[in-house]
Amino acid sequence: MKIYDVEAFPNPARVRIALAEKGATDQVEFIDVDVMGGEHRSKEFCAKNPDASVPCLELEDGTYLSQCTAITEYIDGQFEGVSLCGNTPIERAVVHMMNRRAEANLLDAVGAYFHHATAGLGPDLETNQNKEWGLTQRENATSTMKYLDGVLANNAYLAGDNFSMADITAFAGLAFADFAEVEVPESLKNLSAWRAKVAARPSIAG
Amino acid sequence: MKIYDVEAFPNPARVRIALAEKGATDQVEFIDVDVMGGEHRSKEFCAKNPDASVPCLELEDGTYLSQCTAITEYIDGQFEGVSLCGNTPIERAVVHMMNRRAEANLLDAVGAYFHHATAGLGPDLETNQNKEWGLTQRENATSTMKYLDGVLANNAYLAGDNFSMADITAFAGLAFADFAEVEVPESLKNLSAWRAKVAARPSIAG
Repeated sequence: MKIYDVEAFPNPARVRIALAEKGATDQVEFIDVDVMGGEHRSKEFCAKNPDASVPCLELEDGTYLSQCTAITEYIDGQFEGVSLCGNTPIERAVVHMMNRRAEANLLDAVGAYFHHATAGLGPDLETNQNKEWGLTQRENATSTMKYLDGVLANNAYLAGDNFSMADITAFAGLAFADFAEVEVPESLKNLSAWRAKVAARPSIAG
Repeated sequence: MKIYDVEAFPNPARVRIALAEKGATDQVEFIDVDVMGGEHRSKEFCAKNPDASVPCLELEDGTYLSQCTAITEYIDGQFEGVSLCGNTPIERAVVHMMNRRAEANLLDAVGAYFHHATAGLGPDLETNQNKEWGLTQRENATSTMKYLDGVLANNAYLAGDNFSMADITAFAGLAFADFAEVEVPESLKNLSAWRAKVAARPSIAG
């Protein structure tokens, strides 16, 4: 299978970590998309992924998958190893709930700030900026960091005792926050300790 | 188990349809939340659901679940009957991908228009409006209707041959569009035919 992505970008990072957690990285061919050149918005790429985003997974049967949560569901079900999406109905629901919170209110919120209220990917790509919206979403991201810190006061990981897709999403969100200069408050000791623990995993530390 | 919701609202509708599809509606106690009075933002309710939104599911063991996709994963796994989230890794991924597109770019987009660019739930609740953002999201919703119409030119349902969570989300999105007066273009014949077919399901037609 093939993954169309940009190595250092936040959403591709989620899928690369998921693959590494499952020991499946070497089963994938990575194809670099020239996002800075607008390739993700080309007719050819949108035929693969109408979301005009990276990453996009191409399966052997010609199916194209986009949206990181969906791709992670595929990777989790297809390969052996640690469960990233949970095993029981409650586990699955809690993973999806926490993943969604980390995605909408941290990673996507930082993204909205970056694309709307900073220079983002530059004037050729950021043609519909709404600075007020971006600044609101920066506040959302900071509030969410505080919320996650509270969750981690009682749990080893975001969805409970086990590492999951939700941790991957939040970890990528914090990396994006660093890049976009959305500060992680120093007072959030639980979040910092969790982040160090996740960063040390072989899937990330290498 | 208990569901805190408001009967006629778009996201609660998703969970109510999922329950009906699984024949599990009578296993749930529904508790009305006074959203118009701001109850969803009260300290007491946010202790159940920090997203300050409906619906929220309370399980017998005291677990609270929010986010419709997560709640639907729970319902689908917990009860017998038709599969709403898919069975194989590919099926699961395609359902999540299409569900995410229908959620972010139709239902949530209509919601952004409603809450930001119309009177929404009134001045007491809509205190952070961004009209420009709302109007952008209205355009997103209309574009997504066209995209879904194209998908339905080749598929019986949004994720392929079988009815799924993605159809529930898009159906609720179109109902919300009607309420918010975001017109469904008459030219979208595939979308209209699919909508009539979904509306006739016993889970919806009653």
